[in-house]
Amino acid sequence: MKILVTNDDGVHAEGLMVLKTALDKVAEVFVVAPDRPRSACGHSITLHKPLRAERVVLKDGSHAYASNGTPSDCVSLGLLGIIDDPVDLVVSGINHGPNLGWDLTYSGTVSAAMEGAIIGVSSIAISVASLASGIDYSVAAHFAVDLATLLNEHKLPESTLLNVNVPPLAASEIKGVKIARQGKRRYTGQLEKRTDPMGRDYYWLGGDPPTDVFEEGTDVNAVADDYISITPVHLDLTDYASIDSVRGWGIEKIAIC
Amino acid sequence: MKILVTNDDGVHAEGLMVLKTALDKVAEVFVVAPDRPRSACGHSITLHKPLRAERVVLKDGSHAYASNGTPSDCVSLGLLGIIDDPVDLVVSGINHGPNLGWDLTYSGTVSAAMEGAIIGVSSIAISVASLASGIDYSVAAHFAVDLATLLNEHKLPESTLLNVNVPPLAASEIKGVKIARQGKRRYTGQLEKRTDPMGRDYYWLGGDPPTDVFEEGTDVNAVADDYISITPVHLDLTDYASIDSVRGWGIEKIAIC
Repeated sequence: MKILVTNDDGVHAEGLMVLKTALDKVAEVFVVAPDRPRSACGHSITLHKPLRAERVVLKDGSHAYASNGTPSDCVSLGLLGIIDDPVDLVVSGINHGPNLGWDLTYSGTVSAAMEGAIIGVSSIAISVASLASGIDYSVAAHFAVDLATLLNEHKLPESTLLNVNVPPLAASEIKGVKIARQGKRRYTGQLEKRTDPMGRDYYWLGGDPPTDVFEEGTDVNAVADDYISITPVHLDLTDYASIDSVRGWGIEKIAIC
Repeated sequence: MKILVTNDDGVHAEGLMVLKTALDKVAEVFVVAPDRPRSACGHSITLHKPLRAERVVLKDGSHAYASNGTPSDCVSLGLLGIIDDPVDLVVSGINHGPNLGWDLTYSGTVSAAMEGAIIGVSSIAISVASLASGIDYSVAAHFAVDLATLLNEHKLPESTLLNVNVPPLAASEIKGVKIARQGKRRYTGQLEKRTDPMGRDYYWLGGDPPTDVFEEGTDVNAVADDYISITPVHLDLTDYASIDSVRGWGIEKIAIC
């Protein structure tokens, strides 16, 4: 099996190193990842400037590519250019922090897996659901190996990927695995205005962490209940439940003039 | 009605100016938009550096804010900081080029409307579905006014926005409006490797334009048939159709160790 590993925390992040070390046992692993942290970069791709991919040495002495591009760019670089052979699987992570509910469109980790799925390669995004420092990635890395093995036997539909969130717990404390739908996280964004030494205003985006909405069957609930959540994610954002009600507004009867 | 206008083509783009001029007739319009083109930036938000919002003068002599942030940042800046009064509607566009099918997660235009919806304000993304130069934005701008008026009367569900694509045609050539689901566009990404004058490799992302997949009831079909398409879009990316088949792989029976 040939696996492309990327992330959005940067090529030298611990979560990537632990993931690569685990996957090395079952596959030939290639690493193409951002040269710096690129969290919250969404499904951003770089069309306006050239992409670089510099060879760097990881902590285990192996070679990787560090790119000035986004996580999605790294997947394109890996699958369309740098790696000669066909790749069987893209694994994006292990992210430091949850990618649950409404986090998904903001997430560089998940968006990299979207890019893999669009290019037509089986893809996984995997995160440990804690922003605490010093978290242990080994349970998530072990699970990624199990999942990679399963994805070698089973096929996902076109442009569908798996989004995995692992609670920040020891293996013995994790109750199991749940296939779960994407839940909701309410963001209460805030903006802090400051003035720089030159007297010019600037702003920091911030605010409290998002509020999880606990609903049965969601990724949010699964992780809160100490389960690993797996959500099949696709690129169809249609709100099917709203189609009829919006049609009822009479928009289709507007005269175009 | 108070309307925040933003885009991803930059504050001085023609599509934004035509949109603002049309909306001025029915609302008080505030413009906060990127200081340069930010196409394909996805739902990227800026957490690692301060945001600026400089007052600039538009072609009609009115004042706007130009930001170093992404389109989504501009929506946060407008709704959470710069505009004191409550805003009734966010309109993102008019984008130069389609935002159909799999374009949506890449799109800065659509992501800005996502940000408005997450903050809790009714939001529209609107695009003219042509990358040709010299396209006419007036039909789309007129339609945005009609839609803004409707959204003043009707409420969308929490975190749902409307994604609108207008064919690049004269009003008399447009056959009407269709509420449509999001379709598919197949990307055939390519990577072009070059060498710079210093002998270092670099890459350009590119490739042929995406291939539209023509399926009944989709935005792709509606626009190809000379209709304006409106798709209700939400942030739930769950591939519900895959939940049972993925469960059938036996993942939930994996022992965590």
